Amino acid sequence: MGMSRNDHFSEEERRGVYRAIYERRDVRSQFLPDPVPDDVLCRILDAAHHAPSVGFMQPWDFLVIRDASIRQEVHRNFDLASRRAAEAYQGGQRELYDSLKLAGIIDAPVNVCVTCDHARPKGNGLGRQTDPAVDLYSTVCAVQNLWLAARAESLGVGWVSILDLEQLKSTLGIPPALTPVAYLCVGYVSEFRTQPDLEEKGWETRSDLATVIHFDRWGVHRLANNSDGSI
Amino acid sequence: MGMSRNDHFSEEERRGVYRAIYERRDVRSQFLPDPVPDDVLCRILDAAHHAPSVGFMQPWDFLVIRDASIRQEVHRNFDLASRRAAEAYQGGQRELYDSLKLAGIIDAPVNVCVTCDHARPKGNGLGRQTDPAVDLYSTVCAVQNLWLAARAESLGVGWVSILDLEQLKSTLGIPPALTPVAYLCVGYVSEFRTQPDLEEKGWETRSDLATVIHFDRWGVHRLANNSDGSI
Repeated sequence: MGMSRNDHFSEEERRGVYRAIYERRDVRSQFLPDPVPDDVLCRILDAAHHAPSVGFMQPWDFLVIRDASIRQEVHRNFDLASRRAAEAYQGGQRELYDSLKLAGIIDAPVNVCVTCDHARPKGNGLGRQTDPAVDLYSTVCAVQNLWLAARAESLGVGWVSILDLEQLKSTLGIPPALTPVAYLCVGYVSEFRTQPDLEEKGWETRSDLATVIHFDRWGVHRLANNSDGSI
Repeated sequence: MGMSRNDHFSEEERRGVYRAIYERRDVRSQFLPDPVPDDVLCRILDAAHHAPSVGFMQPWDFLVIRDASIRQEVHRNFDLASRRAAEAYQGGQRELYDSLKLAGIIDAPVNVCVTCDHARPKGNGLGRQTDPAVDLYSTVCAVQNLWLAARAESLGVGWVSILDLEQLKSTLGIPPALTPVAYLCVGYVSEFRTQPDLEEKGWETRSDLATVIHFDRWGVHRLANNSDGSI
């Protein structure tokens, strides 16, 4: 392949990448109060900062929230939004919803809010003229980098999406034109569960990979000459 | 920390995760025509499929495009969109834009289009009531998983955002209600450059991490009792 040898990953390095991907969990219930050392926090934020971004725009900012009163305020925001959301469910599904723990805002010692600045001049608009959402997508890439780096550091991360975003912006002093993309709870954990919480609790099942792969055109799930199911 | 020992990463596994994050490039120019074996392609798609998703919704689909005539059609879409985009630039910036290679649609042997199905019933709406964009965000997490797994497999990936999305949906037969989130070029490469293309060519510089980290509230860039700059 012409690539210099050191571009390749060792078996163990490659295993590390897949372990991070497969053993990453959306943590809600297992946070420990142990503080997260500054150097570890710095490493996962730097990993986030090295995400791909459209036009090298780097539209993200990271708010590191350790203040207990601010986390209490965000938790109240979540709690109200979650009670409202619960009203959409009835019967057994409502009971199941009510039994789920959906946020570790107070339990986790660090929260990180990741925002997107749509007007950031970096990148000079390159790549942004056909799809207005690509700056948000870049910001999400930063979140996923942080999440996987955190797993490699034995840190759990939980993404809380049940929040009134305008109220969150007010709580954190985020300028009106910015979009809060992710609110993350970060901390060491008692364990990483082997399955996602929502799978373990019976809320939803993982779909079969084959059903979401198409070949050349939408809806073509098998190559005609490949009846053994391999792709 | 109470965590079982095997939850921890070895030094080399952890290095693999950071290598993938720091050595991942948005590849445009270095693609080789070598075919990507099915088992390798399957591994990076399965990595994508194990991304986090709101409510365990898994809103993504993956179109694996190897057909040359379809890639030609997507390339024409890109070419026209990029010429239009170029009109926004003048003088030296226009010359620099025109000199950039922004897509490897034809050079890369495999293209992957990742879509988001907003109406997918999985997850029963959990976590989706306060922010309508979270299904798109989940889909981007899948893209970033694929990208990092690909790096560990010595595969380059380039995200082409300069495309007329309606035309792309028509070319690929994607149902109208779905959103194409990412169009990726995938293949082995002659090398992974040490810097992002846009940094190397002088289009944009990487911002200083410290400028995008805030403490507890927006705009607070240093803890008062932490004048050494550590976080």
